[in-house]
Amino acid sequence: MSPTPQWVKDLKPAPPQGTELLSAERDKSKISVEQLSNFLFTKEVLERQDRVLEILQKEKVFDKSQNYFDGRVDKFKTALARAKRLRQLQVQHKWDRDDYITANDLISEPGPYGLHASMYLTTLEGQGTPEQHKKFLEPAQNYKHIGCYAQTELGHGSNVRGLETTATWNPQDKTFILHSPQLTASKWWIGSLGRTANHAVVMAQLIIDGKPYGPHPFVCQIRDMKTHEPLEGVHVGDIGPKFGYNTMDNGFLLLNKLKIPHINMLAKFSRVDPETNKYVKPSSPSLIYGTLTWVRSTIVLQSGGVLARGVTIATRYAAVRRQFQDRDAPSDANGENQVLNYTMVQFRLANADFDDIVLPLLAATFALHFTGKAMMGLYQENQKTMNANTAKTAKVSSNRGAGPEEISSGSDLLADLHATSCGLKALGSTTAAEGLEVCRRAMGGHGYSSFSGVGSWYADYLPTTTWEGDNYMLTQQVARYLLKSARGVLQGNAPNNDTTKIFTIFLQKQDMGAAHDVLGSDSDLVAAFAWRTSFLTFEALKHRDVEKNSWNSLLVDFWRLSTAHSQYLVVKNFYDALQNESLRYELDPATIDVLHKLFRLYALNTLEKEASEFYSSAAVTVRQIQLARTKSVMKLLEEIRPHALKLVDAWHFPDWQLDSSLGRKDGKVYEDMFYRASELNPLNGLTIDPYPDSDVLVKRDETAKFKSKL
Amino acid sequence: MSPTPQWVKDLKPAPPQGTELLSAERDKSKISVEQLSNFLFTKEVLERQDRVLEILQKEKVFDKSQNYFDGRVDKFKTALARAKRLRQLQVQHKWDRDDYITANDLISEPGPYGLHASMYLTTLEGQGTPEQHKKFLEPAQNYKHIGCYAQTELGHGSNVRGLETTATWNPQDKTFILHSPQLTASKWWIGSLGRTANHAVVMAQLIIDGKPYGPHPFVCQIRDMKTHEPLEGVHVGDIGPKFGYNTMDNGFLLLNKLKIPHINMLAKFSRVDPETNKYVKPSSPSLIYGTLTWVRSTIVLQSGGVLARGVTIATRYAAVRRQFQDRDAPSDANGENQVLNYTMVQFRLANADFDDIVLPLLAATFALHFTGKAMMGLYQENQKTMNANTAKTAKVSSNRGAGPEEISSGSDLLADLHATSCGLKALGSTTAAEGLEVCRRAMGGHGYSSFSGVGSWYADYLPTTTWEGDNYMLTQQVARYLLKSARGVLQGNAPNNDTTKIFTIFLQKQDMGAAHDVLGSDSDLVAAFAWRTSFLTFEALKHRDVEKNSWNSLLVDFWRLSTAHSQYLVVKNFYDALQNESLRYELDPATIDVLHKLFRLYALNTLEKEASEFYSSAAVTVRQIQLARTKSVMKLLEEIRPHALKLVDAWHFPDWQLDSSLGRKDGKVYEDMFYRASELNPLNGLTIDPYPDSDVLVKRDETAKFKSKL
Repeated sequence: MSPTPQWVKDLKPAPPQGTELLSAERDKSKISVEQLSNFLFTKEVLERQDRVLEILQKEKVFDKSQNYFDGRVDKFKTALARAKRLRQLQVQHKWDRDDYITANDLISEPGPYGLHASMYLTTLEGQGTPEQHKKFLEPAQNYKHIGCYAQTELGHGSNVRGLETTATWNPQDKTFILHSPQLTASKWWIGSLGRTANHAVVMAQLIIDGKPYGPHPFVCQIRDMKTHEPLEGVHVGDIGPKFGYNTMDNGFLLLNKLKIPHINMLAKFSRVDPETNKYVKPSSPSLIYGTLTWVRSTIVLQSGGVLARGVTIATRYAAVRRQFQDRDAPSDANGENQVLNYTMVQFRLANADFDDIVLPLLAATFALHFTGKAMMGLYQENQKTMNANTAKTAKVSSNRGAGPEEISSGSDLLADLHATSCGLKALGSTTAAEGLEVCRRAMGGHGYSSFSGVGSWYADYLPTTTWEGDNYMLTQQVARYLLKSARGVLQGNAPNNDTTKIFTIFLQKQDMGAAHDVLGSDSDLVAAFAWRTSFLTFEALKHRDVEKNSWNSLLVDFWRLSTAHSQYLVVKNFYDALQNESLRYELDPATIDVLHKLFRLYALNTLEKEASEFYSSAAVTVRQIQLARTKSVMKLLEEIRPHALKLVDAWHFPDWQLDSSLGRKDGKVYEDMFYRASELNPLNGLTIDPYPDSDVLVKRDETAKFKSKL
Repeated sequence: MSPTPQWVKDLKPAPPQGTELLSAERDKSKISVEQLSNFLFTKEVLERQDRVLEILQKEKVFDKSQNYFDGRVDKFKTALARAKRLRQLQVQHKWDRDDYITANDLISEPGPYGLHASMYLTTLEGQGTPEQHKKFLEPAQNYKHIGCYAQTELGHGSNVRGLETTATWNPQDKTFILHSPQLTASKWWIGSLGRTANHAVVMAQLIIDGKPYGPHPFVCQIRDMKTHEPLEGVHVGDIGPKFGYNTMDNGFLLLNKLKIPHINMLAKFSRVDPETNKYVKPSSPSLIYGTLTWVRSTIVLQSGGVLARGVTIATRYAAVRRQFQDRDAPSDANGENQVLNYTMVQFRLANADFDDIVLPLLAATFALHFTGKAMMGLYQENQKTMNANTAKTAKVSSNRGAGPEEISSGSDLLADLHATSCGLKALGSTTAAEGLEVCRRAMGGHGYSSFSGVGSWYADYLPTTTWEGDNYMLTQQVARYLLKSARGVLQGNAPNNDTTKIFTIFLQKQDMGAAHDVLGSDSDLVAAFAWRTSFLTFEALKHRDVEKNSWNSLLVDFWRLSTAHSQYLVVKNFYDALQNESLRYELDPATIDVLHKLFRLYALNTLEKEASEFYSSAAVTVRQIQLARTKSVMKLLEEIRPHALKLVDAWHFPDWQLDSSLGRKDGKVYEDMFYRASELNPLNGLTIDPYPDSDVLVKRDETAKFKSKL
């Protein structure tokens, strides 16, 4: 690679400069970004972010400049170096859990300690006895043991009962023999297992005296503590590259009659009595909803922020690109001159893309954020009330890659929260994943470049739609709960909660029909969503209970029902958040007004997208939907657009976190694209021989110069 | 990496084996795969594929086993070695164009000669004079010059008129001075430019005596023919990694007052007279639709095959996975036992995923294939008729990455074909791209593994939705054409073609309403799609001509209109293909019957997905749509499923081409996943030090062992 000549260094983008464009755009809006950020996240959280960011930016190992170029092996090595350093910083700065999570968010890549720090520690904590805590948890907390949670198998995704790995009790020497009888028994997708972990909690079918007792957790050492080589009888490795998540070493594990002592079966809930050689039943067989609900609420809350990254990037780039193209556009197009007209189309397209496609997603980021916050609040409230009555968390049966979905009885109070968290997890993560891809495409050709920062973020996020309950599967749980609630309302024995309330209202008004003034009244807009959910629930109930249709034939109905219900919840939570009196003290009226518009945009845009369900349920009229689009939504888009840039600024992503040329806060889009391509790109270290009749491929190889400095 | 122990090598997947499952599944269907393949592709094409495949498989350089592991630099090096070897084989075996394309399809990755072999040669051919052919085309055909087509710029996607690069005529020494006045003038996204090309056709604004004459093509040498270093005044390189397409060196190019002789301006259509220093106008200023129509028809035809790869993989994996899970499923679930029920849900899910999600896509592959074939046929027919009357292709103004969309007058005959090719290109490539992602997700967790073979295929295909006309933009051309046709019909001066025919029928019947027996009659089903298109066209016409709405405010309507029209065309072409009498001679009745079912599935599933447009246009009743879903589609899914495996077999993809563990023809899904992870994965050559307090990252590095052997 020849050095960049001076004449290139002297070039600037064509005027106006991105920085001027963004600053002019920001001047159009009176929103106070700082106020809104504080309201969304609290001052404490933002200060924490600043503090942690400052520490990370000083560390060479966290330099991101080669992230988009590194191949898998280098990616992993860098991620490992970062994971180690992060742990050192945690100790050094006495970071609490929130500090550590903040650091991970800023680094924005899955790391090799990911499953150790979450699932392995949690499982030991929740399912180990005090003796086991001493033996396994303590060294794990001190990173002497590095562990993972090995449940999913090659042939069995989320089906826990189908696990093939066995743990056979050997009464002679009081040990368990862990074994993989077949290839499909291989553990698979296990995060942190591939190269990093020296221990694993292995879920295996417990067998005593030839009789199976179902899956149980066993702590296995899998690699030597000094050499880090696999132990005898252990075949372990990384499962290979994936669509994303390539900084993580998801692994496989096969065991050949591996012997482990009695103490290695996690025994807080059930165990094998070594004297009698009998199985001792779980002291608390039911798993409570609590932890899973909490995990899902977190996903809902995060989904807003995940999507907001893409929306931030797309919004900033649109503000640079649109204005730029505006220069070329003639003031009038008469429709005759095709080429001129074509230019106009281009120009209009940039606006249309942005307004019609990105602004509704901007509204969705806030909608999901407020919904997630409300869910967390409800969870904490319920948790407080129920703390005395409820059994402690038995276990969190979930796993990166593919999580199981265990259901059990629980309180009516939490049952509603549980079901809604399932539906919202599915809706939130689907909205975020698909929305990111929409943002990427809305940026045109440059969205395809890694430097857009959206592609890899999307690819890394995708598994969220599968784990902690596959989104498809979760919708059936929501449907089951809604059907049960509807039956309860009909039979007059339903608990009192929001779901049964909206069903009751629906039944009362069913014979009079509904008259929702969706364009005139926000509360009617919420009520229309409630009506649609109720209608679909009682339709599904009829199909199931009266017409006796098979469950299988109703899966698509259930998916729709769950989506409808979750959209209702999002609309309702967004609405409720804006009714909160404290709003007036924290935000000025102009900001509140824009938030109201975002609420209406989210709701009306959803209503219009799902038009056929809204009018087949008679929640609204066809005319109302037509007006929603042609009048209300169009007007809202126009009114929100001037605030778009400040609204994304309020999400408060440091440039360092976004790592995006197109999403730079200062608008230096083209300079940054060019710099990364020209100065950071290792491929430009390769001078090739281009002729097909020559067998020389490379004349000069200077790619090594670009390597990350580790 | 320790060697695989014998006990691992002895393991098999849990029974039944994938091979048995697929063979049992194939036995369920009486379709003759060979017959159907021959019908779809012709015997000649299939034999060509076999012949070329045999040659490729013998060459070590085409070995694919490290494709999913290589980083960008290695990917490119391998792709370059393959491109060279492919050219050698082309010469050696005297391959014609079709042979060469077949080889590229089998290799299935974009290569560094990609733009040389297509756009560079085509542009020289089409726009050069005989003298220029001698000087530029001949050395290019012999790979002495390696070229590319440099149009798109960093700040200008598809907007040709906005190009900033200038070519200033210098009357003193009769040269052009090519110059990039600003950073945004940098050529960007140019395929084969980054590391490979030594020549480029540069599109630049021609300036004579201070006056601009618009963009014109100039041949520039950019690298030294011996050293391959950039020439003085040329800054050129690769633009960096992308979401996909990483085997291709898309490049940037900045020029600093580069002087080129008069002959380097391609002068077949317009030129600068070196004597008078005047611009000589294009001899044929209009660009004809022909070539672009042909390119788009190719994309439509390919879109069926592109999607079919994903569908083939998903279908084969589903047949292995579903049966496998079936073993665990109890024969009955009473809905009470949650865990049992959960298992059932899983099992049902696999079916539901497959039936509801993948089978309609299977139908779409055939629909797109027949549509593409019909388009190609129409194009060739028209071409024959018009050959005498029409000016030759002026130029193909398109470019990998982002193509422009130039419109001009042309014959009425071709105008219809042109517009329909725009709409179908948009629908076909969108269906294929989104369908591939649906296939990937339908495979659950394993779909996320690179070994599924779908992720990289999807990522490489994505740019097709942008180039040869961005899909969003194209829909506006379709709308413009439909509006123009509708005006013609109203004014009684429309040409006679299918579009004006369906509009005329609609206007005649408008006041009586429609009665389409979509569930009972296939021709009525087609007519219902025609009705919906016509309704939407006249609605849009009213908004535009009567209500005088702005073009901008109608963009979403136009997008919907174009989609509706294109769906009509697909349904119609599929229907027409099945009416062809020759069908009876080539296929047995059982196969024809299944094809009919696929037609109905595609049409009814589309009708149901677009329900609200169908009933707001009164093409069908709400009841018909409900029945379409609950009765017809459900029944079709059930009837087609036993044939699914043979239907994908008929697409005739060699395993070598698919390069997918999950899509193996023999069903050895798990063996192949495990083999690739355990034996081919370079990351497993890395033994690390896992402890955070140690600064040693890697204890042993044997990753080099896995490197591609070049």
